[in-house]
Amino acid sequence: MGGCGKEGGGGGMAAQVGRLGVVASVAINLAALALYLRRRYFGDDAGGGRKGEEAAVAPSSGKPPVTPDSVINLDHGDPTMYEAFWRGGAGEGATIVIPGWQTMSYFSDVGSLCWFLEPGFEREVRRLHRLVGNAVTDGYHVLVGTGSTQLFQAAIYALSPPGAAAPMSVVSPAPYYSSYPAVTDYLKSGLYRWAGDAKMFDGETYIELVCSPNNPDGGVREAVLKSGAGVAVHDLAYYWPQYTPITQAAANDIMLFTVSKCTGHAGTRLGWALVKDRAVAQKMSKFIELNTIGVSKDSQLRAAKILKAITDGYERAPAAAGDDSGHLFHFARRQMVARWAALRAAVAASGIFTIPDELPGHCTFAKETVAAYPPFAWLRCEKEGVDDLEGYLREHKIITRGGGKFGADGRVVRVSMLDTDEAFAIFVGRLAAMK
Amino acid sequence: MGGCGKEGGGGGMAAQVGRLGVVASVAINLAALALYLRRRYFGDDAGGGRKGEEAAVAPSSGKPPVTPDSVINLDHGDPTMYEAFWRGGAGEGATIVIPGWQTMSYFSDVGSLCWFLEPGFEREVRRLHRLVGNAVTDGYHVLVGTGSTQLFQAAIYALSPPGAAAPMSVVSPAPYYSSYPAVTDYLKSGLYRWAGDAKMFDGETYIELVCSPNNPDGGVREAVLKSGAGVAVHDLAYYWPQYTPITQAAANDIMLFTVSKCTGHAGTRLGWALVKDRAVAQKMSKFIELNTIGVSKDSQLRAAKILKAITDGYERAPAAAGDDSGHLFHFARRQMVARWAALRAAVAASGIFTIPDELPGHCTFAKETVAAYPPFAWLRCEKEGVDDLEGYLREHKIITRGGGKFGADGRVVRVSMLDTDEAFAIFVGRLAAMK
Repeated sequence: MGGCGKEGGGGGMAAQVGRLGVVASVAINLAALALYLRRRYFGDDAGGGRKGEEAAVAPSSGKPPVTPDSVINLDHGDPTMYEAFWRGGAGEGATIVIPGWQTMSYFSDVGSLCWFLEPGFEREVRRLHRLVGNAVTDGYHVLVGTGSTQLFQAAIYALSPPGAAAPMSVVSPAPYYSSYPAVTDYLKSGLYRWAGDAKMFDGETYIELVCSPNNPDGGVREAVLKSGAGVAVHDLAYYWPQYTPITQAAANDIMLFTVSKCTGHAGTRLGWALVKDRAVAQKMSKFIELNTIGVSKDSQLRAAKILKAITDGYERAPAAAGDDSGHLFHFARRQMVARWAALRAAVAASGIFTIPDELPGHCTFAKETVAAYPPFAWLRCEKEGVDDLEGYLREHKIITRGGGKFGADGRVVRVSMLDTDEAFAIFVGRLAAMK
Repeated sequence: MGGCGKEGGGGGMAAQVGRLGVVASVAINLAALALYLRRRYFGDDAGGGRKGEEAAVAPSSGKPPVTPDSVINLDHGDPTMYEAFWRGGAGEGATIVIPGWQTMSYFSDVGSLCWFLEPGFEREVRRLHRLVGNAVTDGYHVLVGTGSTQLFQAAIYALSPPGAAAPMSVVSPAPYYSSYPAVTDYLKSGLYRWAGDAKMFDGETYIELVCSPNNPDGGVREAVLKSGAGVAVHDLAYYWPQYTPITQAAANDIMLFTVSKCTGHAGTRLGWALVKDRAVAQKMSKFIELNTIGVSKDSQLRAAKILKAITDGYERAPAAAGDDSGHLFHFARRQMVARWAALRAAVAASGIFTIPDELPGHCTFAKETVAAYPPFAWLRCEKEGVDDLEGYLREHKIITRGGGKFGADGRVVRVSMLDTDEAFAIFVGRLAAMK
C-alpha cells in the first residue's frame, strides 16, 4: 500500500502518484498467478444450488456470470468477493427472517436523536468496533444512513451554516474519491460546493474530506489542512483489518463507515456515522429525515444480524490458522493477499504497469505485522503512448475508472479488487498478457 | 372527503378551507363512537406474543404503547393501523427470509435503465396495479426509490434543466403537503426552488405537484396550471381503494407511489415511480445513484413479497362479506369506515369542530359506489378564540400538524387517521369531550 498521500512525504500531485515500483519479491511470482488462475472457483460456490432460498419472489444476483470473453467491469468497488464467505458456515447466523407485520412504523425509537435508528443495529455497531478496535464509540452518537454516501451528504449539510454569504468549500487531497465532487455538486447547493484538491486550497473555512485508507490509492491519511475554521469529515469505509493494519482506534469528530466494504453487503445500502458533537448529529439526522424520512429498517435488521454474526464468530473461537470460515476479516484478508499476489505477478509478467508498494504495519487486531491490501489497485501504465489508460484497458474489455475522475492524470486507473473470483482471475490473466 | 381543492369549485384559499360542515348522517352518531371505544383492540393483537420472531437482534416496535394519559402523536401519517392485518392470516405469505449471501452486489440488473431495481419488485408493482386498476403501467418505466420522498426529489431534479438562468419554480395548490416546501428547499439548490401556492403563481415555467387524493385534505385533484412549458408530477401515494374510489387508471407522465400508505410498511422506506419518458426516467435514476447509490435490496425483496401477498390474496378468492383477512384493501377500508364514523361522532359530540364532507363515487375496484375515507382528517375548529388549533390540541396532549405548514390558516390541523387503534380511540375520546 501507500506510496501516496501527504503522510508519505511528498505533497504535490506528482509525488502522490510517483514512487511506484514494480515489486520483485520472491514470494510474488508467476507461479502464484498460475495457481490463482487454476483455483478460480471457491470450494462451495458450485453455481447452481442457491441453498436456503425461500423467497417466492426471486432476488437478483447482481452482474451476470463472466466467461473468458466477457467484458470485465471493475469500475465500481462491487464487493461480491465476500459472497463465498457468507455462503459458508458463518452465513447461517446471518440469515434474517422478517414477518410481514414487523417494523412497520416510521419510528425505531421515537425519543432518540436518531429516531429511525434500530437499537439492535446500534448495539452491533458498537460491539463490532470494540472487537476490531478501529474506532472509539464511547461518547459518540451513532447515526444510520442509506450507505455512507447519504451520511457524507448529511455531514456536509450539517457543517455548512445556512445563512453564510457563500457556499462552504468542500475539499480533499488528490487523488480523491471520484464521487466526492459529483455528490457535492449535483444539486448545485447554495450551502456547499466542491473546491477541489485540498493541497491547492488556501481558504480559511472549509470541509476537508479525509478518506483513510484512501479511495483510490490506499494511502493512510490525516487531514492536510490546518485552520481553526476548517473541519474534517473522516471517511473510514476501508479502515478494516482485511485492507490495512489497524494501528489505533480512530477518534475523529465525524467518522463514516459502511456495511458494503466491511462485510460485502453493498446491496443492503447501509452505512453508519460516529459523531462526537450532539448538535452536528442532530443536523445530520435532520438531513436524513428530509432526504428519505429515515433508513430502511429491513436493511438495519439484516445488517445487525450480519455484524452480530461476525462478532459472534470471533467471540466463539479465536481465529485458527487454516480455518477462517467463521472469521470474516481473516477470510477477507486471505482473499486480498491472494489477489494482490496475483496482481503483482501479472504486473511483473506484463512489464508495462506499476502499482503502489506494499507497506507493512503492526495491526492491533491481528496482533502481528501485516501488509496493507487496499480494496482498489491504483494501476499506472508506463508504456509509451498510453495516455488514456482507461480507454486502453477498455479495448481489452476491462472497465476501470480513469485517473482524471480522481483529480489525477490519465495514465493511471482505479481497479476494484473486490469483484468475484472469476472476474478477477480473467482480469489478471489479461493484464499479464499485455506487453 | 372533498370540500377542498379546485375541483370543488372555489379556487382561492378561503374556498379551499371553507364549505366544511358538521355532518349529521343518521348512520354516524354517538352510538358508533361508544361502540368504537369499547372494541379498542383488534381480536388477534393480544399484545404479548410477537409470534414468528426469529431475529436474534430484536427489532424496534416503533412508538411506545399508549395509555389513557399518554400524549397521542398524530403528526406523522404513521400507518401502524395496518399491523393487525399483517399479523393475521395474510401475514404468513409476506414473511421474508434473506440468507446472508443474498443480493450483495450494488446491481440488480446491470443493463437496465434503473440498474438497482429488483426485477421481482418491478413485476409485483405491475401486477398490483393491474389488480387495482389505479394506474396504467404498460409503456411506463418503473423506478424504485427510498420512499416516494426520494422519488419526488429525483423528479424535480430530472425536470430542472441544469443550465437554466434561474432555478425552476416548484408549486402546488394550498393546502399542499407540508414536506413539499421543506424538501424542495433544504439544500438551497440552484436547480429548483419552492414557489408556493400554485393558485397564486403566474410564471410560464414550473413544476406543479399534484397530490391526489390530496395530503392534507383528501381532495381529488388535477393539475391547476396550464402552460405549455409547465410540467406536473403526480403524487398518488393515497390513490388506493381504502382511501378513495378508484375512478380511472391514472396515466400521467410521472406518477409516484409508496408502500407506506398502500400496505402500511413505512419502515421499509420504499416507493416507486411510473415514468413515461425514457430520458426523464434516466435522470431520475441518476439522481438516486448520486443520492444513495441505489435502494435497499432487502426492502425491495420484502416489498415484493408484501405486494405479492396482497395480489395473491385477491386472486385466490374474491373478497367475501364478513371476512377480509386475506384482502388488504377491504380490511383497510373497513378500518377507515369505522374510524371516520368515530371521528364524525366525536366532532358532533363536541360541537366545536368541522371536517370535510363525505363524498361518494363509483369505485371500479370495489365495483360499487363507496365514500372516500382519507388517510388524514383536515380538522377545523370553529370555537371563538382558538386561532392556533395545533397548540390548543397540544394542551390536550394531542400532537397534530398545524395548517400553516400546509399553506393554510392556524384554525385547521392535519390529523393522521392511520395510527394504532388504541391511539386513535383515545384521540376521538378526547375530541368528543372538548366543548
